[in-house]
Amino acid sequence: MTAEASGTMPAAGGGDVVLSIDAMSGERGVAEVVRGMGKSLAKNHRLRYILHGDAETLAKAIRKASPLAARTEIRHAASVIAMDEKPSRALRTGQGSSMWNALETIKSGESRVVISCGNTGALMALAMLVLRKAPGVNRPAIAVLWPSMNRAGYNILLDAGADVRADAEDLLKFAVMGASYARNALELRRPRVGLLNVGVEEHKGRPELHEAAGLIAAAGPHGDFDYIGYVEGGEMAGDRVDVIVTDGFTGNIALKTGEGTASLIRGLLREAFAYSPLSRIGALFAYTSLGRLSKRIDPRRVNGGVFLGLNGTVIKSHGSADATGVSAAIKLAFTLAENGFAEKLAARVAQGAGPSPARGALQS
Amino acid sequence: MTAEASGTMPAAGGGDVVLSIDAMSGERGVAEVVRGMGKSLAKNHRLRYILHGDAETLAKAIRKASPLAARTEIRHAASVIAMDEKPSRALRTGQGSSMWNALETIKSGESRVVISCGNTGALMALAMLVLRKAPGVNRPAIAVLWPSMNRAGYNILLDAGADVRADAEDLLKFAVMGASYARNALELRRPRVGLLNVGVEEHKGRPELHEAAGLIAAAGPHGDFDYIGYVEGGEMAGDRVDVIVTDGFTGNIALKTGEGTASLIRGLLREAFAYSPLSRIGALFAYTSLGRLSKRIDPRRVNGGVFLGLNGTVIKSHGSADATGVSAAIKLAFTLAENGFAEKLAARVAQGAGPSPARGALQS
Repeated sequence: MTAEASGTMPAAGGGDVVLSIDAMSGERGVAEVVRGMGKSLAKNHRLRYILHGDAETLAKAIRKASPLAARTEIRHAASVIAMDEKPSRALRTGQGSSMWNALETIKSGESRVVISCGNTGALMALAMLVLRKAPGVNRPAIAVLWPSMNRAGYNILLDAGADVRADAEDLLKFAVMGASYARNALELRRPRVGLLNVGVEEHKGRPELHEAAGLIAAAGPHGDFDYIGYVEGGEMAGDRVDVIVTDGFTGNIALKTGEGTASLIRGLLREAFAYSPLSRIGALFAYTSLGRLSKRIDPRRVNGGVFLGLNGTVIKSHGSADATGVSAAIKLAFTLAENGFAEKLAARVAQGAGPSPARGALQS
Repeated sequence: MTAEASGTMPAAGGGDVVLSIDAMSGERGVAEVVRGMGKSLAKNHRLRYILHGDAETLAKAIRKASPLAARTEIRHAASVIAMDEKPSRALRTGQGSSMWNALETIKSGESRVVISCGNTGALMALAMLVLRKAPGVNRPAIAVLWPSMNRAGYNILLDAGADVRADAEDLLKFAVMGASYARNALELRRPRVGLLNVGVEEHKGRPELHEAAGLIAAAGPHGDFDYIGYVEGGEMAGDRVDVIVTDGFTGNIALKTGEGTASLIRGLLREAFAYSPLSRIGALFAYTSLGRLSKRIDPRRVNGGVFLGLNGTVIKSHGSADATGVSAAIKLAFTLAENGFAEKLAARVAQGAGPSPARGALQS
């Protein structure tokens, strides 16, 4: 967040920040989502929630007269979008669901950001219908954080799976949106943007990437980011790049492959330490250090795919997120709301590759 | 390898197996390649080598009157393909290079398999020129081993980067070739084949994948493999699949992302254990178990991308492979030579999706 921008947003200056939460679709049930909300509220008293779902279920999950009850408004929804619902069906039947109602609160100005643990495809379809794409955006994208060796401790990868295709123009928009997200979520003043490819040499990869490389390189100087060229899969965890741009097919597979590898190693590590009495003693001695490592690569702590390119900010929390995961998504939502991210992003995309105007409140 | 097939190959029955090695292009130099050759020979006395490169350099690297010297024929090559050489230039100027000469020995019948540490793009281009594509193959593919939880301890991923595109027909050929490779390299009688996609549901992903899914499912019963449907990136390390089929762009990025994640975690683990005196003591106690883990995810032990779909077997060893890595590639080369893999693969591709003929010597 740039200093000149932070004072002008509606939510800034210490006021309440209202988040809308679709609590019904999480795999672990409403109670886990509510625990996450309480966890966040205990650390941040400026949070307010609008909680969408079956009113009776939600009321039971929140302890009466608790601080959480005082900061939460329950909104009844008549239906829930199932985790395996096809997006096309969600579009036909989703009106009045907890997911739909949550999205409506952004449009009505009641909340700043929506969080949902529900089905990604359905959430994107409903978000496009209710919020509409931002002017100048053809394909919205999902941006995720990726543990890395760079200063922020995370890279941003997009598109992580909103759409299976992206042409050169789309990839340019992903670069502009990803850079804006990096400035607002990771506080990087001038993010380094790279294009995911099968090699770093100019002649490598598909033709649409060569075209996108030209467009993104040209947009960098006015877009307040540095285009660093192609990055390979092996550099995603490195410190050469902050924003990794790719189509949603490749991005989704890279993301899940990385997660799968990390989870394989976690499993093998657990096995290794349980193997013999000696190794169990070793684990005891190394307990704190291993805990620190485990925290560093814990997927719950980077929970939250952010939908970019809509008129409003929507965060997709992992369906299997526990209270820690939900709380991480809430923290991210607060930061983005506080920074007026949706407005800044829209201004960036509208500005496109054109020359930078005088810096106003919306430039970050 | 099936029992009925193993007795009929020229190399079987305990005779010598000749491998051709392009020793000049490795990043660690000739000495490291030679050490790997010696390591393998110490374990397997049936190996013979034809070693290609600058004769003087090679002669110096092999100790005179050593067992290795007795089993190695040095062939002088006037030039070396540089690691950063473009494939197009390698095609124009590569004749007489160590890489070219190594490939020629397969054509002449002097060796059964070629190993090169050189530039992947140049090696594929020269291999296609010298050996030619096998009948029925439009796009050759590179197959790599991937540590996983299945019985063999490895999955096979292809294409890992021979070509950035693949249509439905190509993906079918990848499935047939990958299944044959799994039978011969991993001794899986009936490999489980999956298509890499962004979700397991039928409607997910790109149209060419839906078409490929139909073709591969139809070929399974006669091709002696089971098509298990789509697999996601997160399942690549799992135990549901043995052969993962994808295009070379996606495969290369998945492979390198997985490797990058593993290497990030190895680094963090090392850091965690070095952090405090207590954690250093912990590492001592857990030494053996950690060594076992480290071996399990050591990329050197799965060194060797195999080029499938050519008239002959070519193994690309990592440019940075040390003696352990080179030795792993030699072991793989021996297994494939011993099994008459190139001939079996060609028979499988020629058979295509048609009905299974009576089982002959070449069916595996």
